[in-house]
Amino acid sequence: MIPIISIVGKSDSGKTTLMEKLIPELTRRGYRIATVKHDVHGFEVDREGKDSWRHKQAGAHMVVISSPKKVAFIRDVEKDLTLEEIREKLIQDVDLILSEGYKKDVQPKIEIFRKEKHRELLCTREDNLVAIVSNKKFRVGVPCFFLDDIKGMSDFIEKRYLQSKKEEEVSLKVDGKEIPMTPFVKSFVANSVKGMLSSLKGCEHPQKIEIHIESADSQQT
Amino acid sequence: MIPIISIVGKSDSGKTTLMEKLIPELTRRGYRIATVKHDVHGFEVDREGKDSWRHKQAGAHMVVISSPKKVAFIRDVEKDLTLEEIREKLIQDVDLILSEGYKKDVQPKIEIFRKEKHRELLCTREDNLVAIVSNKKFRVGVPCFFLDDIKGMSDFIEKRYLQSKKEEEVSLKVDGKEIPMTPFVKSFVANSVKGMLSSLKGCEHPQKIEIHIESADSQQT
Repeated sequence: MIPIISIVGKSDSGKTTLMEKLIPELTRRGYRIATVKHDVHGFEVDREGKDSWRHKQAGAHMVVISSPKKVAFIRDVEKDLTLEEIREKLIQDVDLILSEGYKKDVQPKIEIFRKEKHRELLCTREDNLVAIVSNKKFRVGVPCFFLDDIKGMSDFIEKRYLQSKKEEEVSLKVDGKEIPMTPFVKSFVANSVKGMLSSLKGCEHPQKIEIHIESADSQQT
Repeated sequence: MIPIISIVGKSDSGKTTLMEKLIPELTRRGYRIATVKHDVHGFEVDREGKDSWRHKQAGAHMVVISSPKKVAFIRDVEKDLTLEEIREKLIQDVDLILSEGYKKDVQPKIEIFRKEKHRELLCTREDNLVAIVSNKKFRVGVPCFFLDDIKGMSDFIEKRYLQSKKEEEVSLKVDGKEIPMTPFVKSFVANSVKGMLSSLKGCEHPQKIEIHIESADSQQT
């Protein structure tokens, strides 16, 4: 699972500027970053009159615009997605997700705090606060970095979130819900699947296996 | 797998207008549609100075903008994606993908042709042409609909692409590649997996099962 860290802070604390410094430093270290920005006011990412805009106006649930260098899409949602849902539905091929905002989400948070602008922290450890970035020292049981200590923050993120993925990952979803499994069951499932597939052509040395089964009567909804 | 149909035709043949008529008719019949538009010239879907634009400029591989009613994302790609890759990486929760253009892709095509503007068809059955929409009658072995026969086209699409998914779907990917399986192997894999999981809590009556296994040594790349 791709780790998620939220950069939170009161308005005007410098969240976007911090993101702009962390992204290139982590990218330089070889990690691919996805960012997530919450926009309560809605947004326009397409222009009136363009073909893709016309598709959306005609009622398409989702519109993809593809070009040789980038691809974009816009889709309807019924409610605000959580970071977990965004990771699940939208994000692939990256090492880390940095979100800006999402202070009410359950994911780990780094709070940015400026003593000349704010009186108290927005988050506590109960909110899954994992670090503070500030020009004031805090003693609240989590690491505290100076505002310009991009190296220190990147070291922290790298050590805590990017180097711990050394175990085999096994996940099982039934009807869209993650089924919790003990380590024993995980290894039983993984070994059974690998054993069952081992004589199929193309499955000799699998690094990553994905199986998808959908029963006939669930498809006509 | 979500079926894909491309609406193709020479320039100025009315592809977008046809899409604008098909989308609401198919939506009215209860299907969710995704559309794909190819944009060779690249495109701008974000505005200079916005936070998400700043994230992308700072080097994020992918940027997600989320709001209560819609979600958008923009990501880098190394090459033009095929429709198959777009379906695989980007599209979920829809019944049909309608693309505009993509005449060189392998997916089924409906060509729109106007006798006053064009001299000959763009596609043949070798290009996976499955129907023609035109004000001229063609006898080339595929159904031919009048330009305004949206009902006829929708009936054709519905019958041929939207009602045939009654079998159990079983897919297996190893290291990102789809592994072909005979019907026997599919049913062997599905039944083995279902049997193996049957005594796990939450797996009593699975409609849809997804298993994901990733070995430890593939994760540090």
